[in-house]
Amino acid sequence: MKVDLPNLTFNENGLIPAIVQDNTTGKVLMLAYMNNEALDKTVETKETWFFSRSRQELWNKGATSGNKQKLKDISYDCDQDALLIQVEPLGPACHTGESSCFHQNLYQEETQNREVIHQLVSNIKKRRQN
Amino acid sequence: MKVDLPNLTFNENGLIPAIVQDNTTGKVLMLAYMNNEALDKTVETKETWFFSRSRQELWNKGATSGNKQKLKDISYDCDQDALLIQVEPLGPACHTGESSCFHQNLYQEETQNREVIHQLVSNIKKRRQN
Repeated sequence: MKVDLPNLTFNENGLIPAIVQDNTTGKVLMLAYMNNEALDKTVETKETWFFSRSRQELWNKGATSGNKQKLKDISYDCDQDALLIQVEPLGPACHTGESSCFHQNLYQEETQNREVIHQLVSNIKKRRQN
Repeated sequence: MKVDLPNLTFNENGLIPAIVQDNTTGKVLMLAYMNNEALDKTVETKETWFFSRSRQELWNKGATSGNKQKLKDISYDCDQDALLIQVEPLGPACHTGESSCFHQNLYQEETQNREVIHQLVSNIKKRRQN
């Protein structure tokens, strides 16, 4: 057991980004935001709680779907402005049913079709100009 | 090879949070922010580029230290407002020399000393009240 009491930096809305990772597989499941109360309740209940920026309310991940995340470990980064939450997921993290919210690919190294990459770069450039 | 051309959501400062993960070990290395140009340069150069919120400028991770990150994969989440960047790190991600910026622990499950947890919760509560 090792605990440090950090002086975390919350942003102007009182939130800190929290990366949620599967403790066993290492898969990154989601990025959500915590306020002080969400962090408090996460440590107290050993389940993940976040603050919904769209609904402006606290939510207990999996309270409706049953796909809760059991807390295993919390780390914070050198700037003290981001959290890494290790969990045991009891179901998919994503509302789509995918195990991770990061299930859509934008770039992959192993490519036989370099044209698609060039198309991507060209699209990004175009978007930047507009 | 699979590429999708997402309609990413950048925040009010034109930034999107990017989780950087070691492609081999699964270790989460850092959380940084990209603007459109940083994402563009990351795909073009196959090295990570970010936008520094404190210095308000683009930076190429490892340009000074030599600890660059070779790009392997980019995914985005279901909300399209966060990126997961898989890399091969050529050195420590953290300026402290630690392999990951998330090297400080706030909570760990395996505890023989429940007192410390109670102290943590009490401290968080106290901080919330002040």
